[in-house]
Amino acid sequence: MLGNFTYCNPTKLFFGKNAIDHLGGELAKYGRNVLLVYGGGSVKKNGIYDAVIKILEAAGKTVFEDGGVMPNPTLDKLYEGCERARAAKADFILAVGGGSVCDYAKAVSVSAHCKEDPWQKYYVRFEEPDCEIIPVGCVLTMVGTGSEMNGGAVITNAKEKMKVGHVFGEKVFPKFAVLDPEYTFTLPRYQMIAGIYDIMSHILEQYFSGSDDNTSDYISEGLLRSLIHSAEVAAKDPYDYEARSNIMWTATWALNTLVAMGKSTDWEVHMLGQAVGAHTDATHGMTLAAVSMAYYRFILDYGVSKFRRYAVNVWGVSPDGKSDQEIAKEGLSRMENWMKELGLTMRLGELGVTADMLPAVAQSTLVMQGGYKVLNRADILAVLKASL
Amino acid sequence: MLGNFTYCNPTKLFFGKNAIDHLGGELAKYGRNVLLVYGGGSVKKNGIYDAVIKILEAAGKTVFEDGGVMPNPTLDKLYEGCERARAAKADFILAVGGGSVCDYAKAVSVSAHCKEDPWQKYYVRFEEPDCEIIPVGCVLTMVGTGSEMNGGAVITNAKEKMKVGHVFGEKVFPKFAVLDPEYTFTLPRYQMIAGIYDIMSHILEQYFSGSDDNTSDYISEGLLRSLIHSAEVAAKDPYDYEARSNIMWTATWALNTLVAMGKSTDWEVHMLGQAVGAHTDATHGMTLAAVSMAYYRFILDYGVSKFRRYAVNVWGVSPDGKSDQEIAKEGLSRMENWMKELGLTMRLGELGVTADMLPAVAQSTLVMQGGYKVLNRADILAVLKASL
Repeated sequence: MLGNFTYCNPTKLFFGKNAIDHLGGELAKYGRNVLLVYGGGSVKKNGIYDAVIKILEAAGKTVFEDGGVMPNPTLDKLYEGCERARAAKADFILAVGGGSVCDYAKAVSVSAHCKEDPWQKYYVRFEEPDCEIIPVGCVLTMVGTGSEMNGGAVITNAKEKMKVGHVFGEKVFPKFAVLDPEYTFTLPRYQMIAGIYDIMSHILEQYFSGSDDNTSDYISEGLLRSLIHSAEVAAKDPYDYEARSNIMWTATWALNTLVAMGKSTDWEVHMLGQAVGAHTDATHGMTLAAVSMAYYRFILDYGVSKFRRYAVNVWGVSPDGKSDQEIAKEGLSRMENWMKELGLTMRLGELGVTADMLPAVAQSTLVMQGGYKVLNRADILAVLKASL
Repeated sequence: MLGNFTYCNPTKLFFGKNAIDHLGGELAKYGRNVLLVYGGGSVKKNGIYDAVIKILEAAGKTVFEDGGVMPNPTLDKLYEGCERARAAKADFILAVGGGSVCDYAKAVSVSAHCKEDPWQKYYVRFEEPDCEIIPVGCVLTMVGTGSEMNGGAVITNAKEKMKVGHVFGEKVFPKFAVLDPEYTFTLPRYQMIAGIYDIMSHILEQYFSGSDDNTSDYISEGLLRSLIHSAEVAAKDPYDYEARSNIMWTATWALNTLVAMGKSTDWEVHMLGQAVGAHTDATHGMTLAAVSMAYYRFILDYGVSKFRRYAVNVWGVSPDGKSDQEIAKEGLSRMENWMKELGLTMRLGELGVTADMLPAVAQSTLVMQGGYKVLNRADILAVLKASL
């Protein structure tokens, strides 16, 4: 059943080849001082940084740089970014990069003028910002997180080994995002595949919850089928524009709030993956891949009918002559084979996790309430062990 | 392939039981003078009018009424509405009704301060507004058109027997819409079913075009499957909240631009249906139903692979041991049976169309370029005859 909800997603998206041509027109709507946020420097190698700088200069902007945003942006980096934004009197933050860079930009946008410690306010107490919010725009260079069209901002507190996401309201959503599928062509294969699984996991976290009949789940099934097909094409040829553009668009809709409307959601796979990430700094999508199969097999008995539906509607499993559980299990097996063929990391051991680390990882795994089984500490440890 | 596009849909939606509770908060953002637009008076019978008036009064608004909007809003009514809006110095237009009322409200919003004749500017030359636009909000009481979250406004020129739609840009989109599925419970069965087919037709018009692999088509398949299922439930029990809420939400996403992104579209069924509507004033959804099967069977040979995909992915046709054309035809047969079971109008004769009217209807049918076959006048006449 569709529960009550409010939907609003005002982010403007410019999608396609040379979508960057729209950047100048959008920047004209904001003030002169622009904080330019980017990551480890790949944007300087592939020419995107130069293209953006040229547009910023042509738009008459004063540019303040904030590079070096790491794959899992840390709280220390956030503090640094806030200082830079204040020193620059930033009127606008332009994020050029992947989800981490976009997340970080949004975190700075709500923290630079925050009167309190942003970790305490946003990531411990989960409050909404009541200070001035610096508007953000994104030029996306890596696909997966959906950060370009949502209010999410995940920050890692390295000292406390906590990786926590806050989904802010529509005021924090990027004002615009530039989505050029060709910008993702040069991404290393490992990152492309990790991003693809991040997308899939976003959809599944919202799909595997509840037992109602909900339009959102039908949309999710469509997105999943598109993703599965395009991922197979892109794995063979990363320069296939059709496949990469479909993956980019699916990523946006996988996590821009649409497929969660009116339904409960899970997110336990992300809690497990984020705990692994906080202890290893492993690539986000791979942490999700490594724990998924163990988790879904662990909870299958508590949500058989949904796993059965997933098998039939998404993986095309024929239900003839099989029990619901057999159908459900066959769906997960097909998913596992697809993951292996893509080259995803299927075991935590490959990410540097050792058996002695598991209790600590389990301890920093948040427990969600919307899945088919609410895990206890022993359950979490069992899932992590089965993933090792 | 996903072609280049810009996506922006800023409409804020309040969905669910008692969603009207959000109306006061939204109205507070706009000026005092509100033009209240509604239709033939059903909102006065079911209590929605009284509820809205109470909220408007509590918000301190001065209300100017503009009732009597007909199912196919006419140009003459539009001229009248523009005069009322100017006389009221309307700061805001609140539409309470179905798609016709919302469409009409948007047409008034861009026409009241238009320096030229709005028919010529918007419906003959298809220009964008360059005058002041009066903001619009919607309280939806009938489901189908998607008008609550798009820039569309269809107006009928009765004198010229032309029913023409203009899809305006994001500035004309409603600022907000109140979507309470229970508001649709009292709708007569005929209107409910016509609305359901209008939704289906919106999706199919965008789906049956192009031969690329496009995420939008996968989303469409999800929406179609949800709609087909919920329609069957609602036809048995119109008070099934789950089914009615899913239908309402599917209607919004069927025509808020999403499933057209990056792909070509057709819309020939709507051109045929609108020509019928201009000559008969028949219910929109029923005009679409009456011409659809003849049209799709006429063009099937030109788009067999898409009709085959439709049969398998939407209607669950087993492809084993059948030719593509057989599979495609079986899909259309299943669709036809579903339509008949719902009680849709399957023949133009039932809508008051007679054989001698067909040449005139054919003459006022616009020819679209995006379908699997671009129709000529003889084709149009053939489709209309087969629909009679």
